[in-house]
Amino acid sequence: MGMVGGGQLARMTAQAAIGLGIEFRVLADTAADSAAQVCARTTVGDYRSESEVLAFGGGCDVVTFDHEHVPGEHLAALERLTAVRPGGPALRFAQDKGAMRARLAGLPALKELGVRCPRYRPVSWVADVAAFAAETAGLDARSGGTGTGAAATRGGWPVVLKATSGGYDGRGVWICADERAAADVIAHGIGLIAEEHIAFDRELAVLVARSPKGQGAAYPVVQTVQQDGICREVIAPAPGLDQDAAMRAQRLGLVLAAELDVTGLLAVELFALGDELIVNELAMRPHNCGHWTIDGAVTSQYEQHLRAVLDLPLGTPAMNAVSAVMVNVLGGDDPDLYSRFVHVMAADPGVRVHLYGKQVRPGRKVGHVTVTGRDHSRLRERAWRAANYLGQGTEETAPGPLPGRGVR
Amino acid sequence: MGMVGGGQLARMTAQAAIGLGIEFRVLADTAADSAAQVCARTTVGDYRSESEVLAFGGGCDVVTFDHEHVPGEHLAALERLTAVRPGGPALRFAQDKGAMRARLAGLPALKELGVRCPRYRPVSWVADVAAFAAETAGLDARSGGTGTGAAATRGGWPVVLKATSGGYDGRGVWICADERAAADVIAHGIGLIAEEHIAFDRELAVLVARSPKGQGAAYPVVQTVQQDGICREVIAPAPGLDQDAAMRAQRLGLVLAAELDVTGLLAVELFALGDELIVNELAMRPHNCGHWTIDGAVTSQYEQHLRAVLDLPLGTPAMNAVSAVMVNVLGGDDPDLYSRFVHVMAADPGVRVHLYGKQVRPGRKVGHVTVTGRDHSRLRERAWRAANYLGQGTEETAPGPLPGRGVR
Repeated sequence: MGMVGGGQLARMTAQAAIGLGIEFRVLADTAADSAAQVCARTTVGDYRSESEVLAFGGGCDVVTFDHEHVPGEHLAALERLTAVRPGGPALRFAQDKGAMRARLAGLPALKELGVRCPRYRPVSWVADVAAFAAETAGLDARSGGTGTGAAATRGGWPVVLKATSGGYDGRGVWICADERAAADVIAHGIGLIAEEHIAFDRELAVLVARSPKGQGAAYPVVQTVQQDGICREVIAPAPGLDQDAAMRAQRLGLVLAAELDVTGLLAVELFALGDELIVNELAMRPHNCGHWTIDGAVTSQYEQHLRAVLDLPLGTPAMNAVSAVMVNVLGGDDPDLYSRFVHVMAADPGVRVHLYGKQVRPGRKVGHVTVTGRDHSRLRERAWRAANYLGQGTEETAPGPLPGRGVR
Repeated sequence: MGMVGGGQLARMTAQAAIGLGIEFRVLADTAADSAAQVCARTTVGDYRSESEVLAFGGGCDVVTFDHEHVPGEHLAALERLTAVRPGGPALRFAQDKGAMRARLAGLPALKELGVRCPRYRPVSWVADVAAFAAETAGLDARSGGTGTGAAATRGGWPVVLKATSGGYDGRGVWICADERAAADVIAHGIGLIAEEHIAFDRELAVLVARSPKGQGAAYPVVQTVQQDGICREVIAPAPGLDQDAAMRAQRLGLVLAAELDVTGLLAVELFALGDELIVNELAMRPHNCGHWTIDGAVTSQYEQHLRAVLDLPLGTPAMNAVSAVMVNVLGGDDPDLYSRFVHVMAADPGVRVHLYGKQVRPGRKVGHVTVTGRDHSRLRERAWRAANYLGQGTEETAPGPLPGRGVR
């Protein structure tokens, strides 16, 4: 089993592979990569090089991915050598946001589930963005609004511009207030789509697994909290989410996985706006929204991904606690996280610490903590305190109430 | 952090070290060792060679152990170079059963806890064994018995002979019915002690951790089931154990860890005979009786051992389920465990599988499975079925009721 990419997702997948007794290999950019530090079988190589990807993947029975950045033509070549999961055609929808939007727009299943996508359009010029803004504002007015009129603000502005490929952790996403801001993004000269800006109540995510045989399993729907485009917090299950919405989201995940022929994990990031669920992003790999499963679910997302891509029966995605809260640890000024273990562990012996072995830079995701228990409000306080202290050396707890109407 | 020994205990400790972001190194006999397969920093070397132990350990901030077999003089030399945990003087009581018995016999704390040790004596000749048998039978008659008279069977026979060092998984333990059987053991020419044979109701174990600072933490007391000297099954917590006995066992673990100056884990294997708790064996490392903690406790024994030897605050040893059952997977005739994953996982998606990467030999411990839930009877059926199928390809479930009076 080989994974292309040596980041923290590969690191935690390597950890899960130990239990299954699977020989797990990583193709990492450098020997210092997060996964390379802990994986006994690391190849250092460049995922952008076809020959290096083929040399690595050709020695594996199954190849999967820690990120979406392997070029499609390398994937196609690799698929002639060995099993690639998810396969190139599925992965394209995680690599290319324009392709994803076009594919999802044609799916009747979404409408049946009461789920929609933001209106979008590929754009090349500022005039395209301006036209899109005007049109969405107009559409909004014509159709009586999306239910909130949020997109109609100031003639369709702000408009979200997204790089069609290569973005992560908020990179490659720009919320443009006006044409001038859009012009700055257009000037980058990269492939872009424009999307209507959704003034969501809160963000949710659903994580499902699907095997080549077609078995599916869905984790409980979670609430996610982003700060500056970076996932900071995940609460499982999403507090106060009504059962109908949770079921619709889980079915959405399973339907999308089947429609797009995903093998392995599929994470669907959603905006919740009143009763509406709106598809934001897709990822086909272990995902930040599923880190909590290491400690809070019977089968972690990492083991589940392995089982799915190896075409093994999937594990129980059920939780082993009433609630779980994960908070990402972001680097601060002091690079020595280890020196703060004593305080964090002494203050709260129930906190689960997961560090990624990454060099600490201010604002960089260098680990996460998870706390499980009954009351998510209390768990949030504990998880935030631990994450803040580990990352920044500060004693701050949760940064206020969770977003969302009626969510506490 | 370095661990001497490359078996499954080191393998699972390496897995736990990934989450803590600790650089973890293993000194393994061969590159094919269980831990060497998965640990990025493996040194192949011989723990019996002082120079190799010192070369490995000298490069580590803290050294700990996957087994008890490093010679005492190497430990003493290593302690002049770096932190060795547990230290040589503590480890001696896990290495030398004669020394352990002598040390425990002098501890008033045991008596206060209502815990005793089997009567024992170092023996060199058959006549020593015969004298011990006669004496224990006589003592028994004089004192009115140990409460059961079990040791008085046929004039003190059977007598248990134990190699003072080097034993594991039932190796180095002989239950001798008579002088002739004892003579066969004496003929091996190894250091031996004789112990009275305890006709126990059932076996229990308590696992505690202790840090150099002196912090202690005790896991719930478990019931263990041995077959042919090999641990086959562990049920946490021990069914039907009254709270007083459980408290006494946990306090025993903590007291012994403190009295013997153990750093890291201490496993105390116990015989339960009526209300009596009798100390059988000690181990100062992660232990088979604690495998269930990976899936059934907030902090696994492997992370707990790391935290203890690194002098970090200990993690919560609380369970994350009402009950957990672990069954060891023993090898059968077919070496390909992986081919049986599909059936095991499809039949029971809640079973947690842990394989050790060891070559399959009939009767060899090659992995374990854990199931968590509410009803230990049901969990036993599930865990045994999975373990038997994985190891042997058979559909057998639990081999009958648990040993113990009033235990179901």
